[in-house]
Amino acid sequence: MSATIERPAVCTIGVDFGTESARAVVVDLSSGRELGECTSDYPSGVISDALPGSGVLLAADWALQDADDYLRCLTEAVTGALAASGTGASSIIGIAIDATACTIVPALADSTPLSRVADLRDQPHAWVKLWKHHAAQPQADRINNLAETVDDLDVTPYGGRVSSEWLLPKALQVFEEARNVFERTERFIEAQDWITWQLTGTESRSAQAAGFKANFRVEAGGYASASTLDALAPGFSALLDRLSTEFSPAGAQVGSLVPAWAEALGLPAGIAVATGSMDAQVTMVACDATAPGRMVLVMGTSVCNLLLSETGRPVAGVAGVVRDAIIPGTWAYEAGQAGIGDMFGWFVRNSVPASYVEQATSLGIDVFSHLESLATTIESGRNTVLALDWWSGNRSPLADSALSGAVIGYSLGTKPENVYRALLEAAAFGQRAIIDTFEAAGILVEDIVACGGLPHKSPLFMQLLADITGREIQVSQSAQAGALGAAIHAAVAAGPAAGGFASLDQAGHALGALRSHVYSPNPAATAAYESAYADYLGLVDYFGRQNVGVMHRLKGRVYDDAATSQ
Amino acid sequence: MSATIERPAVCTIGVDFGTESARAVVVDLSSGRELGECTSDYPSGVISDALPGSGVLLAADWALQDADDYLRCLTEAVTGALAASGTGASSIIGIAIDATACTIVPALADSTPLSRVADLRDQPHAWVKLWKHHAAQPQADRINNLAETVDDLDVTPYGGRVSSEWLLPKALQVFEEARNVFERTERFIEAQDWITWQLTGTESRSAQAAGFKANFRVEAGGYASASTLDALAPGFSALLDRLSTEFSPAGAQVGSLVPAWAEALGLPAGIAVATGSMDAQVTMVACDATAPGRMVLVMGTSVCNLLLSETGRPVAGVAGVVRDAIIPGTWAYEAGQAGIGDMFGWFVRNSVPASYVEQATSLGIDVFSHLESLATTIESGRNTVLALDWWSGNRSPLADSALSGAVIGYSLGTKPENVYRALLEAAAFGQRAIIDTFEAAGILVEDIVACGGLPHKSPLFMQLLADITGREIQVSQSAQAGALGAAIHAAVAAGPAAGGFASLDQAGHALGALRSHVYSPNPAATAAYESAYADYLGLVDYFGRQNVGVMHRLKGRVYDDAATSQ
Repeated sequence: MSATIERPAVCTIGVDFGTESARAVVVDLSSGRELGECTSDYPSGVISDALPGSGVLLAADWALQDADDYLRCLTEAVTGALAASGTGASSIIGIAIDATACTIVPALADSTPLSRVADLRDQPHAWVKLWKHHAAQPQADRINNLAETVDDLDVTPYGGRVSSEWLLPKALQVFEEARNVFERTERFIEAQDWITWQLTGTESRSAQAAGFKANFRVEAGGYASASTLDALAPGFSALLDRLSTEFSPAGAQVGSLVPAWAEALGLPAGIAVATGSMDAQVTMVACDATAPGRMVLVMGTSVCNLLLSETGRPVAGVAGVVRDAIIPGTWAYEAGQAGIGDMFGWFVRNSVPASYVEQATSLGIDVFSHLESLATTIESGRNTVLALDWWSGNRSPLADSALSGAVIGYSLGTKPENVYRALLEAAAFGQRAIIDTFEAAGILVEDIVACGGLPHKSPLFMQLLADITGREIQVSQSAQAGALGAAIHAAVAAGPAAGGFASLDQAGHALGALRSHVYSPNPAATAAYESAYADYLGLVDYFGRQNVGVMHRLKGRVYDDAATSQ
Repeated sequence: MSATIERPAVCTIGVDFGTESARAVVVDLSSGRELGECTSDYPSGVISDALPGSGVLLAADWALQDADDYLRCLTEAVTGALAASGTGASSIIGIAIDATACTIVPALADSTPLSRVADLRDQPHAWVKLWKHHAAQPQADRINNLAETVDDLDVTPYGGRVSSEWLLPKALQVFEEARNVFERTERFIEAQDWITWQLTGTESRSAQAAGFKANFRVEAGGYASASTLDALAPGFSALLDRLSTEFSPAGAQVGSLVPAWAEALGLPAGIAVATGSMDAQVTMVACDATAPGRMVLVMGTSVCNLLLSETGRPVAGVAGVVRDAIIPGTWAYEAGQAGIGDMFGWFVRNSVPASYVEQATSLGIDVFSHLESLATTIESGRNTVLALDWWSGNRSPLADSALSGAVIGYSLGTKPENVYRALLEAAAFGQRAIIDTFEAAGILVEDIVACGGLPHKSPLFMQLLADITGREIQVSQSAQAGALGAAIHAAVAAGPAAGGFASLDQAGHALGALRSHVYSPNPAATAAYESAYADYLGLVDYFGRQNVGVMHRLKGRVYDDAATSQ
């Protein structure tokens, strides 16, 4: 037995605020290892039926949260992760958070969320509007109409449209449906910035969220103009007084941990707090993708494609082309596929026969693994069914949420594993189409890193992705790339003097380079998929461009609202 | 209690030789009631892997039967039905059979099947080729190629092609693969005629089978010419010496029951034996469809559409337009859909989740009934998925067995009952397309009678068929329309003097008019389906005509032969 000299670890904490819970990790800056983690579920979860307490009913497509849930879970997750890490509080030199976006907190000027104000608590518009609150679609439609004629609302960099999920439609909905709440709202602020404000006591606004979700364009001078906002609704320009214009870049220190929160979290007061991040974008540093050319795939219920470039130009179906938003000095592109993991989950729940469940049980594996194993035996390029992966519409390159999924080639010999593999293949074809779209626009994709839950769940999907794109797919070792990314931001905010890093680039190299697996394309398989990919593109063109009417009419007949989210 | 005078019943027996079994019914000619029935399974069933006895292996796509199975089951079914009927043998005035087609028995001139000849018994080509023997596809392809340039092989009346199931390809396969068997075959004869030959001791050939399946065209002077056959393969004109040219029309008496069979069956010797029939065509009289304008749908694993007309002309995708084949003096049209009941069965086995099976179990019903019940609640014309019913290809109007099924409109809200109903709707859309094709060609469809197992199994399908076609669907009361039809033929063969009927027309009216249900179209539902039907036709046009390549390529990748039958 040899004695080693134990040097005290230098660590940061990242906290990832997801849709249902917050997850904290403690990261050792000498190794990138995650020493401890803890997840805490929001007590009220996603509020879509009725307000807590008052029981006021919500209409269809509403999705709210309680800002105070974030604070309760912040405490529980951080103290839990710290305890699990086995490291002392004194080793923590910084903290940062990321959150879902675009999630909007209506607040007073002192940061009090309106839902905490007694006389507003029974007003739905006083609560946090979660990213998937889709009830502002009429407002989004009007914004998109106006954008066609107004330069300062140019939506070209956003794939040609504003989503109902973004800040402008959400704020406009408040303005039009609850003027009293709008008047009392002194700040419309993204959740990532509001939580960071609590930790520092100082308001700041992340340039990233403003650029991706609030139509703030550095190159065009900022937000949409007052006259444009008033053209949407007379008086709506009052929104501009309710949006901070103090911007903070990614990785910057926006303040120091205030004593009250230091005590609550069991951390040293005064440690660095970094700019808050968006939950997808924050993974870039966690995958060591801080320079142009490395595409990150954040793969879960949906797939988000992120890529940096030295040039900014519109790309078909890319939902954001934003300067300085992830790494200052570069343009960040966000594209993606709606509902990929969701689609696989739908198949397992809705289309797998009882006989397969029995087989899986007798093999002692879950149904997903059984399907995966059966589908692996089908030869590359020889599947007899072909699918379109549009269960939740198409985000890139068509930007059409009213499209839907398709499977062709059914025969009496079609087996569940044929369809399952066809869904995986279609998702990979869709990724190839996105990559090809970028490259056709001159934005090069040099290599690819996948993170999120899906790469660990479906190795077959990862291999198909490599084979069908003809590219290596590196899988990030971290199962919590969001929280790791936030911790990396905290390490940069803390800076080298405190034991952190000088730049996101350096920190990403040091802490985000670990890979659990690299999937290499099999050249024979890549060649074998050419014909099927061409047929996939034929279906994309037919159903997505030439004859969109048929899927739009089907979507118009939806009688179950569960089918409409994107 | 009142005494009624019991008059002895006057009855006939019909025997329906299906793919797996023979079924006999005893029919009371005074009421049309079926007094008794009995089914007998073929001991060797469908022979597709290896020959019985010798164990000689068969290649893919082969499907044989043992002719002696027909005789064993004939005895068992007839004696069983007679015993079940409670009527005496003396009341039986005639017998007739129908069988699957085109099922070909190779026989000696004395009717001995070659599979009974000791030195040929281990030769696959010496056995009965069942209708679904598809191994003669290369021969069918060459016949279709030659047909383009040779008038006496004009395939226009057959929807533009010869199926691999028909007599010429099957005989040509024997000629080319086993010349010794071909030379020893003194008769290539349809099963329906071979079984009838046993009962009468006299060979005859049904004009119906010759017309529908052996390319015998009354209006063109008969079979393909010797020179045409020799052009397919030098010497193949020897086939003409092996085909009877004595034709017998439907409903004719072709002979009397020979004493040996009378004894075996427990029937009076000398009773009338009618011309054998094809199993689909024979249902026409059982549905009282002996005059032009009444379309019969024989609905089971596939759907066969039969219709008489006073005029004969080509109709797109109609597999047969044959004069005098069902009712002398009229033209008989045969169209259909491949694999409809099969498609529903595929869905239940391959796409219904375990949770639905549990629900059905707890409701005490089968899965099919549970789906039927859930699908009934979806509003007409409001389904969110749309299908193409081509699981086994399209027979009419496209005549393309390399097409396949499709479902579009999938979303996370899609439920199994949406897809199930979409399959029923697609099958009904397909029927509407067939009816519209007939009417566009000037062949009127005045009313519709459905028979077979499916109408009794899926009332929802019947109602959708009425709603989508905008027509009443009458359902035949008989669950054995084939055997009933054969019994009606026997009644005509026996003739009025014996207590039978003077014509198929009279007998059909008297015995085939019973209906178990009439489904009436709901005009609001018919209107609600117009949009979806137009979208269905759009998909038919795209996948079936404009861009057939994509489905053909998928079919070309089939690695599971179960997928190819039509």
